[in-house]
Amino acid sequence: MNTNKTSIRAFAPATVANVACGFDVMGFAVESPGDEVQVTLTDTQGVTIKEITGDEGLLPLHPDENTVSAVIKSYLKHIGKENLGVEISLHKKMPLKSGLGSSAASSVVGVYALNKLLGSPLTDEALLPFAMEGEMLACGAAHADNVAPALLGGFVLVRSYDPLDVIKLNTPAELYCALVHPHVDVKTKDARSILKKDITLQKAIVQWGNVGGLVAGLMMEDYDLIKRSLHDEIIEPTRSILIPGFQQIKEKALSLGALGASISGSGPTTFALCRGREKAEEVSIAMKEIYTQLAIESETFVSKVIKSGPQIIS
Amino acid sequence: MNTNKTSIRAFAPATVANVACGFDVMGFAVESPGDEVQVTLTDTQGVTIKEITGDEGLLPLHPDENTVSAVIKSYLKHIGKENLGVEISLHKKMPLKSGLGSSAASSVVGVYALNKLLGSPLTDEALLPFAMEGEMLACGAAHADNVAPALLGGFVLVRSYDPLDVIKLNTPAELYCALVHPHVDVKTKDARSILKKDITLQKAIVQWGNVGGLVAGLMMEDYDLIKRSLHDEIIEPTRSILIPGFQQIKEKALSLGALGASISGSGPTTFALCRGREKAEEVSIAMKEIYTQLAIESETFVSKVIKSGPQIIS
Repeated sequence: MNTNKTSIRAFAPATVANVACGFDVMGFAVESPGDEVQVTLTDTQGVTIKEITGDEGLLPLHPDENTVSAVIKSYLKHIGKENLGVEISLHKKMPLKSGLGSSAASSVVGVYALNKLLGSPLTDEALLPFAMEGEMLACGAAHADNVAPALLGGFVLVRSYDPLDVIKLNTPAELYCALVHPHVDVKTKDARSILKKDITLQKAIVQWGNVGGLVAGLMMEDYDLIKRSLHDEIIEPTRSILIPGFQQIKEKALSLGALGASISGSGPTTFALCRGREKAEEVSIAMKEIYTQLAIESETFVSKVIKSGPQIIS
Repeated sequence: MNTNKTSIRAFAPATVANVACGFDVMGFAVESPGDEVQVTLTDTQGVTIKEITGDEGLLPLHPDENTVSAVIKSYLKHIGKENLGVEISLHKKMPLKSGLGSSAASSVVGVYALNKLLGSPLTDEALLPFAMEGEMLACGAAHADNVAPALLGGFVLVRSYDPLDVIKLNTPAELYCALVHPHVDVKTKDARSILKKDITLQKAIVQWGNVGGLVAGLMMEDYDLIKRSLHDEIIEPTRSILIPGFQQIKEKALSLGALGASISGSGPTTFALCRGREKAEEVSIAMKEIYTQLAIESETFVSKVIKSGPQIIS
C-alpha cells in the first residue's frame, strides 16, 4: 500500500454461515451485498465514528459500543498505536439482523481497511481474533463462521475454536448463491436458544457424513457431491419454524435445480446454492414470489461465491 | 482378464474404520495384512469351500454361513449364473476379531476374485452391496466403513447409507500406519452397545469440525491439518475402556510424533497414523513394548496406507 495515504475505502462481504450440514463450522462469502467503510487518519487522538449510513439508526455511534470502532481500538492496542487518531464512516449496504453476517462484515471491514492503510503490520489471517471480538460485542458470542469467510473469502471451515483453527477450502468456480431475506425478525439468541442441547448419535453420524461430503465436494469441485451433502438433520428442522414459508421456499429452490437450500446463519434469510448465475437468478425470483404470495416483504440477492475476502475500493 | 483362466488368486487388505473422528463414515486400507483367496471354476454346480487356513477353525465351512461363499452366491444370483461351480480356498493372513476388518476383507476378496475371473461383468464399485451383505452376515450390521476401503483402497468416506454414497478420497503418499493388536477379546456388539444413544450438540460440533478438517487435510495432503483433526470426542472415551493400556499406547504414539492414534474399528487394535515408514516403525515398536510391560501378548503391523484395493496375485 501507499503509506502516504491518510484515508482508505474498503468493502467486506456478507457471508452465509452453517451451510446446511456445517453448523458453527462452515461459512462462505458472497460478492455482494456487504459493508463499506472509509477509514481516515486524523491529527486528534482516538477512534471516532463520523457517520453511519444504511443502518436506519440502529447501530451505536459510541466508539466503545460500535463494532467497527471497538475492533479497531483493540487492534491499535495490539500494535502499540492506541493513540492514533482514526475517523470512521460506515456504510451498511446490506440488511441488519438478516442472517447474512452483517455484524461480521462490520467487524472485518474497518480493521481490514486500517491495517492496509498502515502498510499491513499484520497479515489478513492475524486480524481474525480482533474481528471475533467484534462478533462477541455484537452477538454475545465469538463465533467465527461469519467473520472467517468475511475476512478470508470463499468457503471456510472452522475446524476448532479451542484453539482457533480456520481452514480456507477450495471454492468451485461455478458456485452462485441466491438469497432471500424476508422482513421478519429472528433474533440470533432466540434461534440459538430453541436448539436442543442433546442430539442422537445416529443423526450426528448422518451430519458428519455430510460435512465430510461437502468438504470433499468443494475440494474436488464435484457439484453433484456438494448437492448430495447439503442436508441438515439437526438444526434446520428446529430453527426453520421461526422462518415463515421456509419449507415452501426450500422445496421450490430444489425443484428448480438448486444444489441445496437452507437457513443462512440463524435466519431469517434462506440461501440456495446453485451451479451458474442463471440458475441462481431463476431460483431467487421464485423464492421472492413465494414471499409475495405470503404477503411478506422480502429482498433477494444473487451473487457468486467469491474466493476473495474484503476489497480496497480506493 | 484372460477369460480362459479357470482359477485366480487374489488379496484383499485389512482396513481401519472410524479413523478417530469419522465414526461409521470413514475408513482406510493398508498394504498388509489381509486375506488371500483362491477361486476355481469347477464342473459341478454350486459354491463350495475347499479349505480355510489361518482361522484356527473359527470360520464356518458351510457355503451359506461362510462370508466368502455367501457373498459369491449372492453375486452369482445377481449376474444370472447361480448354477456356476465355484470352489473357494480362503487363507486368513490377518487376525480375526481384531478390529482390522477381517470379515470385510473376506467379504471383498472372494467376489473381487471371481468377478475378475469372469471378465469383470460388474465394476469394482458395483461389488460393494454384495460385500456389505457379507458384513451383515458376519457382524449383524451392513456397515460399509471397512468393506468400502477394502474394495476401493485408500481413504474412503461413507457419506450416506441411505442411499449408499461412498466417496473415494485422496490418500497422501507419505501416510503410514502402525497397528498393535493385543490378544484380548472385544466383541463388536459389546463395543457398540456401550455407546450412548445421545450426545451433546457441543461435542457433535467439535466432531464434525474434525471430520471436515480430516477430509480437507487428506485432499490437500496437509499432514499437519490431518494431525490436528485426528481427535474423537465421542466414541473413543467410551470404547477405550474395553481396551487395556489404550491411553498409555495412544500417548506414547503421540509423544513419538504420530499424527494421531485411536481405536481401529471397534478394537482392540489401536492404530497410529504417521508420516513416513520410519516413524510408523518406531511407533509400532513402542506400542508393542507397552503391551509386553503389561504382560499382554500382541502383534504389530506397519504398513503404507495404500491407494489401491484388492490385488490379483496370480
